[in-house]
Amino acid sequence: VTSNETIAALRRIVGDRHVTTGADIAPGHLADARMAMPEGEAPAALVCPANAAEISAVLKLCRSAGLAVVPQGGMTGLAGGAVPLPGSVAVALGRLSRIEEIDTAAATMTVEAGVPLEIVQRVADDAGFLFALDLGARGSCHIGGVTATNAGGNRVLRFGMMRDLVLGIEVVLADGTIVTSLNKMMKNNAGYDLKHLFIGSEGTLGIVTRLVLRLHPKPRSVATAFCGFAKFDDVLAFLGRARAELGGTLATFEVMWPEFYRIAIEEAGRRPPLPPAFACYVLIEMMGTDSARDPEKFAAFMEQSLDDRLIADAVVAGSEVQRGAFWHIRDASSEFSRGQGIPAGFDVSVPVGDIGRFVEDVAARLAAAFPDLRPVIFGHLADGNIHVEIRRIPDERARHDIEEIVYGATRDWGGSVSAEHGIGLVKKPYLAYSRTPEEIALMRTLKTALDPDNILNPGKIF
Amino acid sequence: VTSNETIAALRRIVGDRHVTTGADIAPGHLADARMAMPEGEAPAALVCPANAAEISAVLKLCRSAGLAVVPQGGMTGLAGGAVPLPGSVAVALGRLSRIEEIDTAAATMTVEAGVPLEIVQRVADDAGFLFALDLGARGSCHIGGVTATNAGGNRVLRFGMMRDLVLGIEVVLADGTIVTSLNKMMKNNAGYDLKHLFIGSEGTLGIVTRLVLRLHPKPRSVATAFCGFAKFDDVLAFLGRARAELGGTLATFEVMWPEFYRIAIEEAGRRPPLPPAFACYVLIEMMGTDSARDPEKFAAFMEQSLDDRLIADAVVAGSEVQRGAFWHIRDASSEFSRGQGIPAGFDVSVPVGDIGRFVEDVAARLAAAFPDLRPVIFGHLADGNIHVEIRRIPDERARHDIEEIVYGATRDWGGSVSAEHGIGLVKKPYLAYSRTPEEIALMRTLKTALDPDNILNPGKIF
Repeated sequence: VTSNETIAALRRIVGDRHVTTGADIAPGHLADARMAMPEGEAPAALVCPANAAEISAVLKLCRSAGLAVVPQGGMTGLAGGAVPLPGSVAVALGRLSRIEEIDTAAATMTVEAGVPLEIVQRVADDAGFLFALDLGARGSCHIGGVTATNAGGNRVLRFGMMRDLVLGIEVVLADGTIVTSLNKMMKNNAGYDLKHLFIGSEGTLGIVTRLVLRLHPKPRSVATAFCGFAKFDDVLAFLGRARAELGGTLATFEVMWPEFYRIAIEEAGRRPPLPPAFACYVLIEMMGTDSARDPEKFAAFMEQSLDDRLIADAVVAGSEVQRGAFWHIRDASSEFSRGQGIPAGFDVSVPVGDIGRFVEDVAARLAAAFPDLRPVIFGHLADGNIHVEIRRIPDERARHDIEEIVYGATRDWGGSVSAEHGIGLVKKPYLAYSRTPEEIALMRTLKTALDPDNILNPGKIF
Repeated sequence: VTSNETIAALRRIVGDRHVTTGADIAPGHLADARMAMPEGEAPAALVCPANAAEISAVLKLCRSAGLAVVPQGGMTGLAGGAVPLPGSVAVALGRLSRIEEIDTAAATMTVEAGVPLEIVQRVADDAGFLFALDLGARGSCHIGGVTATNAGGNRVLRFGMMRDLVLGIEVVLADGTIVTSLNKMMKNNAGYDLKHLFIGSEGTLGIVTRLVLRLHPKPRSVATAFCGFAKFDDVLAFLGRARAELGGTLATFEVMWPEFYRIAIEEAGRRPPLPPAFACYVLIEMMGTDSARDPEKFAAFMEQSLDDRLIADAVVAGSEVQRGAFWHIRDASSEFSRGQGIPAGFDVSVPVGDIGRFVEDVAARLAAAFPDLRPVIFGHLADGNIHVEIRRIPDERARHDIEEIVYGATRDWGGSVSAEHGIGLVKKPYLAYSRTPEEIALMRTLKTALDPDNILNPGKIF
């Protein structure tokens, strides 16, 4: 139970109209893209501070009042990491929305945590750069949120995850200390690297308030193809060749198994670039800097792969419209579960060489227990990241069994139960499937050292 | 004073012949490439364990005996990080020398910490891959040592620092816990990222025993040019253009100021590719995957830059011999201080856009205090990393004043007192020039949490 005095003190810190309680809290702050607070539960308050100093004061207050604090970005997460805990203080970062600087010589952008990803992308583009992180929720997710969850997305193969795009960080610690570490240099070995501690820690170690982002030169050429394969081993061999021949210009290598392709064509109504006759499909894209030579190079690479029968069939996009149609197939996944009943989705990674056998194993285990499920499988192959979507599970009781099957297989293949979505609340029961007791103990040591009173997003991750 | 019982117990753990004491300790274990133990001082023992289990037992023993432990790799460091402390137990990792696995599908190599960098490079090459880290000490430095110091080197621009080449890690903590986190996946968001905590922590948080390394495809083309510029601003503009046009194939961008070029030609006897008439010199190299098209692309890029008068003059290497001659100029820095008396060297970074003014400022401050010094300035420009070499300082008393000038200027320009060499003992007095009190306090929090008895490399970094 939160005393009225604490709410009044929060109002004094951030201003009356930036604290809401009870039914006044907008529903968007009670759920992320995957889960909502249980019905009947509510946070003590939603607080919208304007800057790091206010967040510092809020944290000091909550610490002395013994109140849990749940940091919130754009609420687009898929693991429940930003879903408020009952009786907690939700701290929404949306008012920290300034673009502070673009340094064109250093190729950096300094921003506050509440700026939406799409704005960061646009501002970078206007300045002649690429901000490389990209994912479906770009319009709503915050740059601070994708930092706290170390988001991945469509271009990890070429540019890395969010972790690889952050040069400097400012965080507020549980005791209210503001740690400003806004490094702009590619190289800085002066003591411990602190930013990586907070990136991907899902708001359990500190609240990210500012970032120095790394920008890349804008690509000047894009070449795209949609390929069909006779067997999965050919996909792996093709990936190896693409890496060797396209090098740093290989930007996308998305793989789709037949059930994915069937649904995209038959149910989602996409136009098929190839007949539905193959064991696997791949969307490959090259992003280069040479608009004159790159298309020719890509065409020669594709031709050779077809001549060598590595690829069974392929279409190279001849226009931006055709390229859009290829991506339209891949993006159909976002509609697969609509109107299908209760879905279940998995975001796992396994070592790249094992993916073929892993997928067969998962499919076989699921079929043995639930013959009618027909899992939809696709992923970012070069990153080892596989998504398994079950469009309709029999009922909520089946969820646990299905999770045990998929995460159990992931454990047995030495994989990770979370490739890019994080652990949050949703995957917490399965953390030990991918991390050893010693690793989890070390995570707890860090948590205890930085947040001894356990007020920052308590109960998330572990 | 170490009791004979402790030495005897160390012998029981690792075997008699793997413990040496007193005058039997090889001198190579008493100094790194920059500094030696003070005369008359010595470690209590040098211990050479065979594996993580033995290291765990050594750490438990030292902890209960209250003995400091100093981990040692190839002793090629430049900051004193591996120099033994008086009365400490030096733990040399050279016997952990196995290459455990190459996974060609995942493009990873699993190795023990004591493998020399050059062996890693060769084994990767034999398997058809590139292990991208490269630096002068490649034949002696250990892969574990370059991890503990987050080494940089010649290809950071293209492939990142050591931090970017590590996927998984095994470390022994101060209490003897072996944390095995040998992740092979590019994507793993299952809880905190633990590896980054240890990379670059200079042996103060744990002892690295095994690594999963990230391999890259082998480049298939190399194109190199040596360029002269009328003014430094042109160098920055040329860098921007090289990034935009060469993209991910730009591998090297080394800048040298006139005093560097003069010494390389006049004193070190290198053959000048260009007359000594320019304000700045740049060695640029492109590494690509297309042996047919890349040389032509590079030549066109260079021609355009000359036509636009961005470059004042340039030579493109027409053969491997000529390329070697260009690199011979750049590598002359390793001989500059020979026979010159007492040298002083600096490894700093500043935001790329400020480098020109920073270099002018440092040179002016040094000239005001020491008119005869003639600092030699060069660096990895795209990384913001500048080396300032003073070939001969007046005497040891002048060292402090010179350090204050160079590190003071670095602080004033918002730079880092250590771009790639680490802090160790040598730069410890200057850590606060680059990091805030809050950052250093957070480093101490981490140190205390992981090593409460302060036995791991105590007194290094801070």
